[in-house]
Amino acid sequence: MREQAAATGILSVVGIGPGAADLISPRARLAIEQAEIVAGYRTYLELIAQLLRPEQQQLNSAMMQEIDRCRRALALAEQGRNVALICGGDPGIYAMAGLVYELAQETGSTCRIEIIPGIAALNACAALLGAPLMHDFAAVSLSDLMTPWPLIEKRLQAAAMADFVTVLYNPKSGRRTGQIVRAREIMLEHRSPATPVGIVSGAGRSNESVCLTTLDKMLDEEIGMQSTVLIGNSRTFIFQNKMVTPRGYADKYGLRADES
Amino acid sequence: MREQAAATGILSVVGIGPGAADLISPRARLAIEQAEIVAGYRTYLELIAQLLRPEQQQLNSAMMQEIDRCRRALALAEQGRNVALICGGDPGIYAMAGLVYELAQETGSTCRIEIIPGIAALNACAALLGAPLMHDFAAVSLSDLMTPWPLIEKRLQAAAMADFVTVLYNPKSGRRTGQIVRAREIMLEHRSPATPVGIVSGAGRSNESVCLTTLDKMLDEEIGMQSTVLIGNSRTFIFQNKMVTPRGYADKYGLRADES
Repeated sequence: MREQAAATGILSVVGIGPGAADLISPRARLAIEQAEIVAGYRTYLELIAQLLRPEQQQLNSAMMQEIDRCRRALALAEQGRNVALICGGDPGIYAMAGLVYELAQETGSTCRIEIIPGIAALNACAALLGAPLMHDFAAVSLSDLMTPWPLIEKRLQAAAMADFVTVLYNPKSGRRTGQIVRAREIMLEHRSPATPVGIVSGAGRSNESVCLTTLDKMLDEEIGMQSTVLIGNSRTFIFQNKMVTPRGYADKYGLRADES
Repeated sequence: MREQAAATGILSVVGIGPGAADLISPRARLAIEQAEIVAGYRTYLELIAQLLRPEQQQLNSAMMQEIDRCRRALALAEQGRNVALICGGDPGIYAMAGLVYELAQETGSTCRIEIIPGIAALNACAALLGAPLMHDFAAVSLSDLMTPWPLIEKRLQAAAMADFVTVLYNPKSGRRTGQIVRAREIMLEHRSPATPVGIVSGAGRSNESVCLTTLDKMLDEEIGMQSTVLIGNSRTFIFQNKMVTPRGYADKYGLRADES
């Protein structure tokens, strides 16, 4: 134990992408393979089960225990262990990266923390829907567990008013059903009822579903815990069952943009 | 040629991520390996040179010829060929996915189009900076080549006013130097001069640079064509040289959020 305490541990916060094995980056895979301890929400550990070795210690836990899990992962890295904390999507977008730093600050941790980015829900859902995020966009979580609802409304108003393509995370859960209704109302104050809306659930998983609808009709569709909702801007159109936001507001082919 | 015309071609629009080989997903790699023709901006083809085979036809071109390149890639897929169109980052975020669909619509193309998502600049830059995107954020391109500047200003105002973490794409080029100055002014109308700002250039490439500064001082730093600028929200803080946006506006550890 003395040797471990003296060693420099590492906590890799690993994004495994939407769930499909072929969207896990080699860097994420290596971090998982090299870890002595792999921590994560059970669903994510199941998604990477084929990468885990019997000798690796697993720290899984049920939903709502994320803070304890991060705390334990950090404490083990602090003791000199090599720990991989698994996140669905990208750890940097509404996931664990921030919590890890918040807890490291709280506990005065000095272990090495590495964030390995992944393909987030917004990237994966956009690809399934076509090309909805080709112009300026805003991501808003409708969960008011840790954010006051008036601030969420203010952001929805701002996104609607300024014609941002809008990605809604956590649109609805068993307990929270009114937020998506209100979000749609706010959008309708600034955007046509015919605005294309994409709803993707379980992107990259066996239960994946992709639905194209409109702002008008979106509440008729199934929206749940695993759904991400993408609302087009005033120029978004449907082509061959895909949701496409054009790149420019100017004449389409007369001008040529920077490559970025 | 008759056989080719009868076959169903495919155009894979492939995101290779920020540039590091170990952030290219297996799905992207396979699409590149299986393609008969690989098209892309020269810089991106150089980044994946080790994946290319001598018998693969390459369609590269210099900057500013992206529309012709997409058109040719689409025409070849229409003739039954297997074509991979390479994009840096994620094809779905300010990249080629939308242009491909716009051109397919224009030409009445019926070939199969597949978007393979990648780790976008915003994901990669966030990971390098720490955890800046842990709460609602907006992405705004400062390029006014295809978007009227008043609309860009309106979006910056909206993002600033509603306390969105804000990611600025295309902040500056040789010709465009005033937009980033104005963007900072707009942000300062709503946010403290001490707000953390991250500037990442060449993320994942040999010339990568990561700089942490503040809204006040950001213009003293090098910002160029390959830079992405991330402006924190009112809660973003610096910890151990990392930029961290806390998850919640409520009491930090009293509440526990949904896992998403």
